[in-house]
This record gives sequence, C-alpha cells and structure tokens, in this order.
Amino acid sequence: MSKESKDKQFVTEITPQGEDFSRWYIDVIKKADLMDYSPVRGCIVFKPDGYEIWEHIQEELDRRFKETGHRNAYFPLFIPESFFQKEKEHVEGFNPELPWVTEAAGEKLEERLAIRPTSETMFGHMYSKWIQSYRDLPVKINQWANVVRWEKRTLPFLRTSEFLWQEGHTAHETEAEAREETMQMLDIYQDFVENYLAIPVIKGQKTPSEKFAGAVDTFSIEAMMKDGRAVQAGTSHYMGTNFAEAFEIQYLNRENTLEYAHTTSWGVSTRLIGSLIMVHGDDRGLVLPPKVAPTQVIMIPIGPPKTRDAVVGRTDELYRELKAAGIRVRVDDNPDVRPGWKFNEYEMRGVPVRLEIGPRDMENGVCVLVSRITGEKKVVEQANLVQEVQAMLEQVHQEMYNRAKQFREDHFYSVDTLDEMKASMEEKRGFTLAGWCGSEACEDTVKQETGATSRNIPFEPGETKTKCLVCGDDAKHTVLFARAY
Amino acid sequence: MSKESKDKQFVTEITPQGEDFSRWYIDVIKKADLMDYSPVRGCIVFKPDGYEIWEHIQEELDRRFKETGHRNAYFPLFIPESFFQKEKEHVEGFNPELPWVTEAAGEKLEERLAIRPTSETMFGHMYSKWIQSYRDLPVKINQWANVVRWEKRTLPFLRTSEFLWQEGHTAHETEAEAREETMQMLDIYQDFVENYLAIPVIKGQKTPSEKFAGAVDTFSIEAMMKDGRAVQAGTSHYMGTNFAEAFEIQYLNRENTLEYAHTTSWGVSTRLIGSLIMVHGDDRGLVLPPKVAPTQVIMIPIGPPKTRDAVVGRTDELYRELKAAGIRVRVDDNPDVRPGWKFNEYEMRGVPVRLEIGPRDMENGVCVLVSRITGEKKVVEQANLVQEVQAMLEQVHQEMYNRAKQFREDHFYSVDTLDEMKASMEEKRGFTLAGWCGSEACEDTVKQETGATSRNIPFEPGETKTKCLVCGDDAKHTVLFARAY
Repeated sequence: MSKESKDKQFVTEITPQGEDFSRWYIDVIKKADLMDYSPVRGCIVFKPDGYEIWEHIQEELDRRFKETGHRNAYFPLFIPESFFQKEKEHVEGFNPELPWVTEAAGEKLEERLAIRPTSETMFGHMYSKWIQSYRDLPVKINQWANVVRWEKRTLPFLRTSEFLWQEGHTAHETEAEAREETMQMLDIYQDFVENYLAIPVIKGQKTPSEKFAGAVDTFSIEAMMKDGRAVQAGTSHYMGTNFAEAFEIQYLNRENTLEYAHTTSWGVSTRLIGSLIMVHGDDRGLVLPPKVAPTQVIMIPIGPPKTRDAVVGRTDELYRELKAAGIRVRVDDNPDVRPGWKFNEYEMRGVPVRLEIGPRDMENGVCVLVSRITGEKKVVEQANLVQEVQAMLEQVHQEMYNRAKQFREDHFYSVDTLDEMKASMEEKRGFTLAGWCGSEACEDTVKQETGATSRNIPFEPGETKTKCLVCGDDAKHTVLFARAY
Repeated sequence: MSKESKDKQFVTEITPQGEDFSRWYIDVIKKADLMDYSPVRGCIVFKPDGYEIWEHIQEELDRRFKETGHRNAYFPLFIPESFFQKEKEHVEGFNPELPWVTEAAGEKLEERLAIRPTSETMFGHMYSKWIQSYRDLPVKINQWANVVRWEKRTLPFLRTSEFLWQEGHTAHETEAEAREETMQMLDIYQDFVENYLAIPVIKGQKTPSEKFAGAVDTFSIEAMMKDGRAVQAGTSHYMGTNFAEAFEIQYLNRENTLEYAHTTSWGVSTRLIGSLIMVHGDDRGLVLPPKVAPTQVIMIPIGPPKTRDAVVGRTDELYRELKAAGIRVRVDDNPDVRPGWKFNEYEMRGVPVRLEIGPRDMENGVCVLVSRITGEKKVVEQANLVQEVQAMLEQVHQEMYNRAKQFREDHFYSVDTLDEMKASMEEKRGFTLAGWCGSEACEDTVKQETGATSRNIPFEPGETKTKCLVCGDDAKHTVLFARAY
C-alpha cells in the first residue's frame, strides 16, 4: 500500500489519450506497475502484474497447442553465425538486428554466436537429424523462450530488444498438410485473441514485402489500437521447403524416395500485452480483459470504524468463497485509505470488477458489484455471489470486445486513390482498404507518402477494390493499410 | 513408432551401470529421447520428453512459490559489465564463466553485456529503485529463465553452458526475516525433491569456500547418485546486506532512518532432471518418478488379430476414463510390434506403470498393472481402474524413495582420518562424514588428496565428529564429503 499512499493524485496524472496517446500509454503502464525500464538499452523488466498477464496468456495458449498435438521443447539461445548464411532471405532479414557473442570465459570464440531472434535455423538443423522417414512426420514442437532483436526504436511490450514469445516449428510430408497446420495455428491465434483478450482481429495474408524472412507465405492477425494504428498480434508462416533445403530436412517418402519436408512456424509474443492495453485502456487507466487480469475482483469493505471488524470479517468469508471458485480476487481493507481513493486506484489498474460491501449490505445479505468497463453498479445477493461475479466478468469481457469492435468499425475506411489514402491516414486514422496492383513499387509509394504499410490481404475484406490506388491498374488484391506499431 | 521399429535391439545397447556409469547415463538419456546435443558447445536441446519433466517440476514448484507469497517477474538477459564489478566476490566467482556480447546490429557496444549467469545484480539494481520504505518490504519475486555459464566440462542436464532454472530474489527489513525466508525456501526444495522426485536429500550449510559468490551463508540440499557421487539439488542463500550495499537497496525504517535491506536468493535448475535419472535409473533404462513422468501409464492391448478390435476398443474406453481422472496415459496399439518389445521399450523409457489388457481380461472385466520399479504384476478390476492406477503410482513413488534412501544409507560412511577418507572415496564411494577444523587449508587438502569436496555441514549429521580429519585439531563442524557432479 505504500506506493499508493505516497501519491494519492496519480490517477489524474495520466495524460488523456486524446492529448497524447503515446504518453498516455507510458503513463498507464508505469503507474499500474506493469513494467519498469532496465539499465540495458531497449530491455524492460516485466513486473509481477505485467508478467502475470503473460502467464495467463501462456496457460491458455499452451493448453490449446497441446490439445492440437504439439509438444514443448527447448532449443539453445545461441545460434552459430554460419547457420544464418544458409537461408538467403533469412540472413538479410535478421542480420541487421542481431547481437553477437564474440568472447566467452576470457577467450575469443572461433565462430561468433548470435542471440536467437527466432529459431528456424536451429530447429532446421536439429530436424534434419531427427527426421529420416515419413514415419517420423509430422514433427510438431513449440518453444516458450526469450528472443532478442536489437531494435532502433523501442516501446515497452510492443517493441523491446529482448522479448518473450512462443515459436512453433513443424515439419510435414506434404504442402497440403503444412498449409493446414499454418491455418490451424492462425485460427487458434484469432480465437484466442478475440475470446480471451477481447480484441477483434483481421485475418489475412501478408504481401511479399511484409512476409517473414524466408517464408513462402506469411499470414497474420491485425488488431486496431485506440489511436487507429495496427498491431500484428500473431503470425503463422508456411515455409515451403526453403528451410528444409537450407538445412537438409529430408525424408524417405512412402515410395521410398528422398523428399524435402514442408515446414511451418508461428508465434505470438509479449507484444500482446501492449496490444490489449492500447485496445482497451481509457483515460482512467487500464481496462484488463477478465480472462488474463491478475486480479479479477477487488473487494473493498466500507463503512465507519465501529462496524469495520464485522464487515471485514464477512468480506473475508466471501473472499474465500470466490477464491475457492477459482476467481482471482483480492481484498483491500487498508483502514488508512479512503474507499473513494481505492475505487480510483483499482480502476486505474484495470481490475474488471469491484465489489463493495458496507454495514447495511451486511444486514441485507447483499453487496455491490461495479463493472470497470461500463461503471454499472449491481446489487447482488451474497448467497449467489460466485455466479453473479462470474456473470459480470463475462459481461465485462463481452462489452470490451463489442466496444473494441465498434471502435474498429468506426475507424475503418476504404479509398480509391493515394490522395484519399493520405487524407485517411492524416485526418481520420484507422484501417483503410484499397486496391493494389501487386507491385512492390506501388506498395512502397503508399508507405513513403502516407506512413501506412500494407497490414495484410484480408481473407474477408468486406468489399473488393478493382483498381490500384497508386498506378490505377487493375487491382490484384484488396489490401488493408494502416500505420503500425 | 518409426524410431522404435528401426532398432528393436536398443534396450540391450545400454551400457550397464556397473560397467561405466557415465556411459550408462548418456546411453539412457539419448535412447529415451530426453535430449540431443546441439551444434553449440555445451548446449543441449531439451527434447519433448525431457522438457516435459521440467514442465511438471515447474508447475508444482511454481504453485508452492505462489502459495508462500512470491510472484513471478522477468528481468533482462543482458547484464552490463559494470554491474559485476559492484560486488567483489560475485565478480570473482562468475567472471571466468561469462559469455560477452560485444557487438549488436553491426556496431561495437560501448559497454560489454554479459549473458546472465544469475541475476542478483540486475535484481539488486531494480530493487534499489523500487524499495524506499519499510512499507515496500518484503519484496518476494521469482523468475523462470535461461542462464548461461561457459563451463569447461559439460554433461547433459547436470552441467550445460545454457540451462533453465528459477531464481527467487527477496528483500526484507531484518536479518531474522531474511533468514526465515532462506530456510523456508530450502524446506520447500527439500519437500519437493523428496515428495515429488522421490529423492532423499541432506540439508545443510555450505562451508565458506563452497558458498555462493557474494552470499553470507549458503544452504543446500545434497542428493546421492547411484555411483555414489553427490548432486547439489537446490541452494538457498542469505546475502546479508552485501548486495544491498553494492546496489544501494536502502529503505526508511520504522524509526525513519535509512537502512540496508537484507536479501536472499534461491534456485533449482534443470540439473534436477539429470539427478532424478541418476538416482532412480537402472540397467533397463529410466525409472521416472510418477509425479513428473510425461507418461505415467502406458496401455498395451494384447492378443491375437481376431480379438484385436474388441480389445483395442475397450482399451480406448479405459484410456478415456484414466485421462479424465487427470492421469497422463498413452496407448500403444501398434499392431506391427510385439508386446514383449513394447514392454522393454517403455521400461527403458521409465514409464512408472504398464497396463496390459487381453481378450481373457476383457471377459473377466480385469486388466494387469505392472510396476516399473518392482516388476510386480497386479490383476485389477476394470471397474476400479482409476483408483488402482492411482494407488500403484503412489506405490511406485514410495518404493522409489525407499530404495534411494536405502541406497544412500548403504553408501554412507564416517571417517576419522584423511587416509580413511581416501579409501572411502576410492573403494566404497558414497557420502562420508568427517570432522573439520574450519580451515580452508584442510578442506583443500581433502579435495586434492581424495577428489571429494565438502558438500555441506548437515543440520542433522547423525553423529558428531570431534577431530579434524586432516590436522587432528578439534573439529568445528561435522562435514559431509563426497565427489560431486
């Protein structure tokens, strides 16, 4: 409680979103104690409330990965320099961001070791040893790990030099099976992000210039932040036989001839934490999706000193009931802090549901639940508390999703020309559909002139554009453009 | 199944323990598919069956850490060189093992960054920012992470350049409270290792020469491998104010004066995997403790082709029952492999319980459970299968613990002189108690002459030695000596 009592004003210190969204973001994550800057450039400390969000993300995704036949493993942090040379696009894509270990235990290394920015090469090397026959396939392994990309501009959670993620790497007999895996994982990401983090996303395929370095096809889910910018919330790649050829992942097929395996990879990272903050937060602070909130319910006993012991006693009983039902609940019964101050504090921290209980509530066998997202107050019977709390948590989730979806619809545009795109990006901000001829030059022009990049080619764009917004030629694709984090 | 069918002989390829224990160990972990060597010096790949043991260790320890008021967080992988200079013993202890990042993104770094070998310095730096007042204490944070120590001689799981671990770091107002935390965590480790991994351990305090670099006192739990060598299975350190002084972790105490916090740290690592293999394995292969075994029960339907479908159908029903009860169960119904071969295979892989079911069992509503550790066969009613399996898993655990304890008692010695210690180490092998005067010179003589190091000063040595085994002076402590991994 000490940090809070030092500064009872800090809720009002959060910069309003409308004034400066980036400052709002930094204010909120610092004040809500999710992270701190570290002494190492671009690396943050994930503090307990920030890290716990990641733990809940991990639990649920891990469950879904295992349910679909994947197993976890752990591969080395270090990747020999020569590995990066084996896949041409891969080295070009990642080389500019690699940190290098050149000395160890007082001696210069013969070969420099990169800190992994991703592990396709290491998995490729090992898979080539493990896979001999079609009977060894598929191999479906996931890894939870830290990775490092020495980024020039960093932003806590969204782009840090070191971050946490999972990377799935699979190898298959056929293209069809590998593509099915690629899509299955993209679907799992979409379902998870929408139904667990309450973030609606747009599924689609990356354009060649935006795909993963070394992939044949990259697919993504794209989410809209409250400043209209996009975050790529998850990606799934079909690698074809590129890495199999580079690392000689060959197997004897059913006809007893050697073939290259088809591989995939897919990942989400701690940038999901940044995303859910930017999608749901408001001027009062965080709004955390109930399914990943470290504290789902904060219980605040209220009333004068003379009834205090009785109220706190009853609060503790109800606390145990909620906890036994698997609800993540905390009690703040600090007598030195006014309830009103606590209300602000836990709103700022994004706790989905507040439970108030006072002496009159005690007499009536009720208490009051307050929704963080709508502010709605509901008097509920203590006898039904578990169900009432679960119902309100579910309502909060649903309302968060609906609002995020409405916000995205309100900031979703469609343009025909580059000038319209410029106006769209500068005045309205948001996601903007446009036709594209397929040439990298036109895509690059959009980027240079408007700051927007192609996010993906949506599977369900809603409408079909017929002309390229830059050159006016026939459009090959209807593309989603946005400025992005 | 492909790997198995390639080589039906490999059970007999395991080197017997009595012939060459180190070769037995490598044979077993390779054949049971727990790990593979990586192309990076001293780094292994934790394959799914090896990694899953770690996942079960994590789940249970994490639960116990949280139950005792700790929370997880994540701190940076990189540690600036200057941090290591701040605590003199710490830098001397770890400097020889550090790998250094000297370049990143094409540029030479101004300050070299070490890959963390442990994170006292980074936690110290951050705690100094977070802790201002006694109201901020205690801070009790744990981290699950990879760490790197560039070891000269490596051994899979037991000593690898990169390994996985947890490191708890806490800060407290008083020495008493910090010491209580240090002991609490040591007790948690002991309880976990004994009751979860079925490994009896000896608790005690490290001698000054063996304590953690920078600690005031280090405590350990020591386990005996089947070759009589010791593994330090977990450590807990009371740091005093050493790191608080080095990193200025100061707080205003209840009398409003500045004081240094008292800190602790404690950790266990993936060397637990190596330990449980060396404690429990036998000439037939792995023997996995039921509570961490990736597969707890392997179900093998048997009988002629004509009854096959019926037996496999019933097996699947029973499989679903066991799975629903939370038991980690697998079915091997591969018709191309003989049951006898499967029996050997899963014994080699250390699966605690085998379930056999044939056509006659079907008729009688029974099946057969076989214990990996005793070989005992038990005919059980299918109607009680869940309870019967749970009971046998518990029996296997208990029997494993009892045997490990008996083995340790059979290899536990006590000596009065250096010559006796030499004989004890060369002929008998095992743990050997001896008196020690407290001088580093005598301790070092034991090491030079016998290869044994002081493991710890047991809290309950069983007997009290009165003379130093080297110099014959009065003994200050009764010390546990052993050759160690």
